[in-house]
Amino acid sequence: MALTFPADLAAQIAPYLPPSPSSSSSSSSSSSPSHEDTRPFVTLTFASSLDAALSLSPGVQTHLSGPLSKAMTHHLRAHHSAILVGVSTAVADDPGLNCRLEGADLDRQPLPVILDPHARWQVSEDSRVIRTARDGKGRAPIIVTARNVVTENSDEDAILQRQRLLGRYGGGYVTVPASDGRFRWTDVLTALQRLGVRSVMVEGGGQVINSLLEGEERELVDAVIVTIAPTWLGQGGVVVSPQRTTAPFVPPRLRDVKWMPMGEDVVLCGRL
Amino acid sequence: MALTFPADLAAQIAPYLPPSPSSSSSSSSSSSPSHEDTRPFVTLTFASSLDAALSLSPGVQTHLSGPLSKAMTHHLRAHHSAILVGVSTAVADDPGLNCRLEGADLDRQPLPVILDPHARWQVSEDSRVIRTARDGKGRAPIIVTARNVVTENSDEDAILQRQRLLGRYGGGYVTVPASDGRFRWTDVLTALQRLGVRSVMVEGGGQVINSLLEGEERELVDAVIVTIAPTWLGQGGVVVSPQRTTAPFVPPRLRDVKWMPMGEDVVLCGRL
Repeated sequence: MALTFPADLAAQIAPYLPPSPSSSSSSSSSSSPSHEDTRPFVTLTFASSLDAALSLSPGVQTHLSGPLSKAMTHHLRAHHSAILVGVSTAVADDPGLNCRLEGADLDRQPLPVILDPHARWQVSEDSRVIRTARDGKGRAPIIVTARNVVTENSDEDAILQRQRLLGRYGGGYVTVPASDGRFRWTDVLTALQRLGVRSVMVEGGGQVINSLLEGEERELVDAVIVTIAPTWLGQGGVVVSPQRTTAPFVPPRLRDVKWMPMGEDVVLCGRL
Repeated sequence: MALTFPADLAAQIAPYLPPSPSSSSSSSSSSSPSHEDTRPFVTLTFASSLDAALSLSPGVQTHLSGPLSKAMTHHLRAHHSAILVGVSTAVADDPGLNCRLEGADLDRQPLPVILDPHARWQVSEDSRVIRTARDGKGRAPIIVTARNVVTENSDEDAILQRQRLLGRYGGGYVTVPASDGRFRWTDVLTALQRLGVRSVMVEGGGQVINSLLEGEERELVDAVIVTIAPTWLGQGGVVVSPQRTTAPFVPPRLRDVKWMPMGEDVVLCGRL
């Protein structure tokens, strides 16, 4: 089950990774961002089809990428202090959100973060991320909710119960202000910074990814790593395509681009 | 203005090209299709954004790919006996549809083919494809219309006039049966075969490309060559994404895949 990622590919991806904790205080790399002490390094990463679909339809997990690009995802997880997904992904995929790379010790495991403004994820002892934490193969998640949800939720008992469950494994709820059920990315990143998160890998789903490509928030993205599989999922899939929030619309374009063929897939690295 | 395409990239693309006329009778390449004598070799090719968009909106020409992938397009044109686009592309882009590669003689120029079921393209002496033909830098187009259009069109005079214009430069109208204003690809290819076309490069636009990825017609495609530029055009663009015409839907997937980084873009070669 443990994955390995070839060293030559790892070397090619290295310039796009966040500065490693050991080198962060005396960083000499030109690729390191200068905001290390104010907010986490943000990597946006996902796998899509040729028609930009993450999955065949909402709530349906679709396996797109091959074994090599899957190993790359786990390599990336080993180099970030947190992994972030939206609640829809947590509900649909029941993901483990850990690093399954060979030799990945618990102290290299990233912190799973779930954006869940309305606290609707019914995390339980059966959730894969909790089982993974129980088995010592990953960490328990932090669930980010809107400031007014935990105390005002009609299902307060259930949430307190989940809070105890998360706490038992070292996870918990974190509240962040939201308006119209949406967080501002700066608020989320500030909250993560306070938790000691120095780098976060945003993995999905569609809404979360698109929101990071729209408007000014895209400036928060330090690196983009996209896997593309040579297939078309067809109309009706969950697609990565930002809304045109500004007029005139300026299409986001990547710079410092590197394309890396990886098995049947290609991996695109760049900066926004 | 003349373009050059590096020999090393040309060598990488070679396995996906149609058999050359000189070698076609005694072809020994395993990649050559066996249908050479019944219908033309079909290459599907286009450039899209990361969100699968060909252009920002219908009728808007959007420059996506860099100089190297543009030179590749002209290299491909030099290796096909015809280039095919839909009428919307002809109207929106007023394309030259010739090969602008350095040293491209008139006898290596591909035949432009416009799919125009209702004969709505008002080709004139000012159309770029006609000016290109007049200048000896390309060939006059063949316009494919529905069998009942040319004779039943209320604007018969205008069509006869265009027919004379096309004829002056060696082009013309070809009629093919259509139902509900749509051609079947087998009928179009049969008509092209009769004109001596041995290979056709389908370049756009969205409707034409998608129709070749849908249902059984995708079996007619011999090679796919897609350029992807590292940008997102955002929601509302003209996208390449087939309709899910079969149930259950089987996503078309490419095999014999080769990814070739080309400047800022990547070029994907494969077979359906």
